[in-house]
Amino acid sequence: MPTYTAPTKDMQFVLHDVLNIAGSDIPGYADLEPDFTSAILEEAGKISAEVLQPLNAVGDTEGCALENGVVRTPQGFKDAFEQVKAGGWPGLDMPEEFGGQNMPYVLNTAVGEMFSAANQAFTMYQGLTHGAASAILAHGSDEQKQTYLPKMVSCDWTGTMNLTEPHCGTDLGLMRTKAEPQDDGSYKLTGQKIFISSGEHDMAENIIHLVLAKIPGGPEGIKGVSLFIVPKFLVKEDGSLGARNGVSCGKIEEKMGIHGNSTCVMNYDGATGYLLGQQHKGMRAMFTMMNEARLAVGMQGLAQAEVAFQNALDYAKDRLQGRDVTGVKNPDGPADPLIVHPDVRRNLMDQKSFTEGARAFTLWGAMLIDQAHRAGDKDADGLISLLTPVIKGFLTDQGYDMTVQAQQVYGGHGYIEEWGMSQFTRDARIAMIYEGANGVQALDLVGRKLAQDGGKHVMAFFDLVKSYIAETKGQDADFDRDFLDPLKAASKDLQAAGMYFMAEGMKNPNNALAGSYDFMHMFGHVCLGYMWARMGKAAREALDGGTGDPEFYATKLATGRYYMARQLPATALHLARIQSGAEPVMALEAANF
Amino acid sequence: MPTYTAPTKDMQFVLHDVLNIAGSDIPGYADLEPDFTSAILEEAGKISAEVLQPLNAVGDTEGCALENGVVRTPQGFKDAFEQVKAGGWPGLDMPEEFGGQNMPYVLNTAVGEMFSAANQAFTMYQGLTHGAASAILAHGSDEQKQTYLPKMVSCDWTGTMNLTEPHCGTDLGLMRTKAEPQDDGSYKLTGQKIFISSGEHDMAENIIHLVLAKIPGGPEGIKGVSLFIVPKFLVKEDGSLGARNGVSCGKIEEKMGIHGNSTCVMNYDGATGYLLGQQHKGMRAMFTMMNEARLAVGMQGLAQAEVAFQNALDYAKDRLQGRDVTGVKNPDGPADPLIVHPDVRRNLMDQKSFTEGARAFTLWGAMLIDQAHRAGDKDADGLISLLTPVIKGFLTDQGYDMTVQAQQVYGGHGYIEEWGMSQFTRDARIAMIYEGANGVQALDLVGRKLAQDGGKHVMAFFDLVKSYIAETKGQDADFDRDFLDPLKAASKDLQAAGMYFMAEGMKNPNNALAGSYDFMHMFGHVCLGYMWARMGKAAREALDGGTGDPEFYATKLATGRYYMARQLPATALHLARIQSGAEPVMALEAANF
Repeated sequence: MPTYTAPTKDMQFVLHDVLNIAGSDIPGYADLEPDFTSAILEEAGKISAEVLQPLNAVGDTEGCALENGVVRTPQGFKDAFEQVKAGGWPGLDMPEEFGGQNMPYVLNTAVGEMFSAANQAFTMYQGLTHGAASAILAHGSDEQKQTYLPKMVSCDWTGTMNLTEPHCGTDLGLMRTKAEPQDDGSYKLTGQKIFISSGEHDMAENIIHLVLAKIPGGPEGIKGVSLFIVPKFLVKEDGSLGARNGVSCGKIEEKMGIHGNSTCVMNYDGATGYLLGQQHKGMRAMFTMMNEARLAVGMQGLAQAEVAFQNALDYAKDRLQGRDVTGVKNPDGPADPLIVHPDVRRNLMDQKSFTEGARAFTLWGAMLIDQAHRAGDKDADGLISLLTPVIKGFLTDQGYDMTVQAQQVYGGHGYIEEWGMSQFTRDARIAMIYEGANGVQALDLVGRKLAQDGGKHVMAFFDLVKSYIAETKGQDADFDRDFLDPLKAASKDLQAAGMYFMAEGMKNPNNALAGSYDFMHMFGHVCLGYMWARMGKAAREALDGGTGDPEFYATKLATGRYYMARQLPATALHLARIQSGAEPVMALEAANF
Repeated sequence: MPTYTAPTKDMQFVLHDVLNIAGSDIPGYADLEPDFTSAILEEAGKISAEVLQPLNAVGDTEGCALENGVVRTPQGFKDAFEQVKAGGWPGLDMPEEFGGQNMPYVLNTAVGEMFSAANQAFTMYQGLTHGAASAILAHGSDEQKQTYLPKMVSCDWTGTMNLTEPHCGTDLGLMRTKAEPQDDGSYKLTGQKIFISSGEHDMAENIIHLVLAKIPGGPEGIKGVSLFIVPKFLVKEDGSLGARNGVSCGKIEEKMGIHGNSTCVMNYDGATGYLLGQQHKGMRAMFTMMNEARLAVGMQGLAQAEVAFQNALDYAKDRLQGRDVTGVKNPDGPADPLIVHPDVRRNLMDQKSFTEGARAFTLWGAMLIDQAHRAGDKDADGLISLLTPVIKGFLTDQGYDMTVQAQQVYGGHGYIEEWGMSQFTRDARIAMIYEGANGVQALDLVGRKLAQDGGKHVMAFFDLVKSYIAETKGQDADFDRDFLDPLKAASKDLQAAGMYFMAEGMKNPNNALAGSYDFMHMFGHVCLGYMWARMGKAAREALDGGTGDPEFYATKLATGRYYMARQLPATALHLARIQSGAEPVMALEAANF
């Protein structure tokens, strides 16, 4: 059975050696000294490895069951949920006034990686609640906040997000769910929502559904969508639970993975709902928290890749098969371990260089979010808005591929459910789809974010990379050759793609859109290259300074060199594809496919 | 629910317009006139679409069950198996003297693609039988052939291949199963084999296991392995079934996919076996049919990609979501179909250009096998031996990726089992693992096949591409630019990689092995590029000649242009990775990972 060890040492390296969080002037960051973050990460690592991970396979095998309208979660989930609640984890970054601990989001992200790696399906119950609570925090009236947030911050009540309907996922303007105004100021909601994660389950006293719906007579399409709070049990004035509301789970879906999370068809039959935020501004309210939500999904890609990698690595060290062609490594055994073989190493190094780069990328992204929210920095907000589709799309695509590679290390055993590697790929697959399918992320990046504020944020990104190279260059010739030169080349490829979009997209927008997916991946590689250059520099300085564990830093440098030599050159291929333009992509009539 | 339509028109195009099989002087090919092959393909397409495909989801949902030593296959499988047998499909390319139809392997391959696309798990029962029968045909005594082949050619008896043991998959020298000689010339086999596809089931009167085992006192390691025939029921002299043999199914595995095929742990408890071929030459005997077996698995990668693509395409045409940015395409509907969006097209064109290229590649490979076997052409044998790991490794990796892309077109519905897209990816996943995991294919290619016969066959491949370009160039400037120039560039990249291996692999073999996986993919792209150039030429000539369906040929040309512009440039990335050498891959000590 698979195991999980929280990568706390690597997280500490990123938070302190690379991002120097305690030295940042973002409000709340001064407290984040290494000893403090270490204590929190170790504690989160412990509950992840000891409580959540052992339930991962249970959740997969047992799944959820709908019986008489009630969803039964897998055995052990409820106990584990109580332990997570008792530890105060759901409220880590929530305001103290509602029972939270008001920690920065960057810490929440590190903890989230561990929880997701240990048990993605389980962690979603808490993750959706966090998203719903954040929306209420941002858009709710004082009364709504007082009514719902204390219970949601503690996860006594959980939350959901209801967007999709059978005939509309991405194109929410087609939505049919109706919200009819009542005399008392409430609404009656009627319609069906699908793919509602954690929509119904047995781990919370109440479930607070956030539901998008149209108020009759409002504007057509997406501009007529409003957001509503629809509790499973209505809440009385004294805060106690009242009548069951007209919302029910009609079905739970049989899915490829994340079996431990109940994915529900939710039926609203004149359910009582309360407007959250303004009428017809539902999309805006739902998407206020989009950067965090999408970063969290990108992090799931990293998380599944990490746990899959850890197990593939263990297997590659243990399994004896064949001999090293350059000389026997295990003369006392019948064969050498798999890890001696160059192609197995290639596979493992792909995984290792991805997960460590992705970890730095998500933590840097989370720090930008803190800078935007806690310090009110509009430039940081613009930059993270630009990077959000890259984090979501690139990390979930690559994270999935890495789980497939990890599975491959196991040979035939990778295909057998008992060994657990299949679950990592099946669970990781969803992250490429939900919270905006990755093609939609690419469209958001190229169609919206690139040109936002006159292209200011993408220029800022290029400046960041450029000045980093300029500041760092000339101190160490090997480092320049291995890290900075490849980064410069990749960044130039990305700029060339941007220029192509500007020049050719003017003539025909499809010239930009046909290259959007490649652009997203290319951008992701440049970001990971930038992260690796920063990590490499930190590792080199630590080695030069003689601080810390020299093997750790030397390994970090070697892993970075691998990424630079073998992954970053992908930017040239993406550029070539982009520059071939829309014609090859759009040449066929639909009927001739 | 998914559907399947056999791509008979495309197969006819490849067989006749491109490969001109009826004009070949390979024995048996003169009969393969278009009308004749069309009749066979249509018939095979019919049974695939109407009988096998509807059972695909049934097999996945129901799976196999082991009860009191007997494996129950999913409902409907036995009836379908009888229909396949009645149609004579299992013996299509088997000798007439054993009840077969003696058709060329190229036709068997086309039929195999359809059967696999329609129902891979089901088709494996027949496929394993074909492999086992082929081994008996090549190595069996006359008596063994007479005893087993008529029943196996008809699939009244099915066959299996028993290689893997719990502690050894790739490294079969570690094998522990023993075969002790008996006075009557037979052997008693004792040991355990795992991952035995079709190892036990209820669709045949008898199951003929081919089992690798060691005769005590023989040479150590792989040189001491022999091959045995171990029937489930012993066969009496008159051909009727006798006593149950000492072989039994101990367990069936829960797998990620191909649930309809029983993957068995087989226990041999002093089971009676008969030596097939020579003592200690078991590996050679088992692998005589390796090129066919591996080509058939490569074809499974294509097959799952094809059926997934067909369904993704239907969905992209039907599902209304969003509007074409260049102008509304479906003004009467609430939205435009998905297929208007450039990134959806990019996804679909990846799939289409892969499947059509892969089809040509497998059929060309099958033709080379016929040329080797039927015409005794040693050069063809050398060439197909070189190409076999490419067909197996590249087509199953890419085929899997295409099923993932097809699933993505469905958005959230792609993750729900009911819609069937998840099954295609779960079923396709195994083809990257079995019949030699793809890393082993890459090792075989670079470590063995490249240098075979002094590098003669890889030189022959390059000559083939070069002379094709030379012969074709100068007739049509657009064609030269769109097809021949990219092919030439890609082929040069592949040669440069080969040169790098020669020069640097001499110094350190890891310089070649660390690049083996990239080389396999690069080689695959050049082969598909070569196929697309040949298909493009055939299409252009047909258009110029005014024969056939002009839309079909124009579509073919446009699809080829897409492959050349957007897929073939991957060779440069693979070359860059290869030329970075072994250092980045091998830099870490195993303990520092």
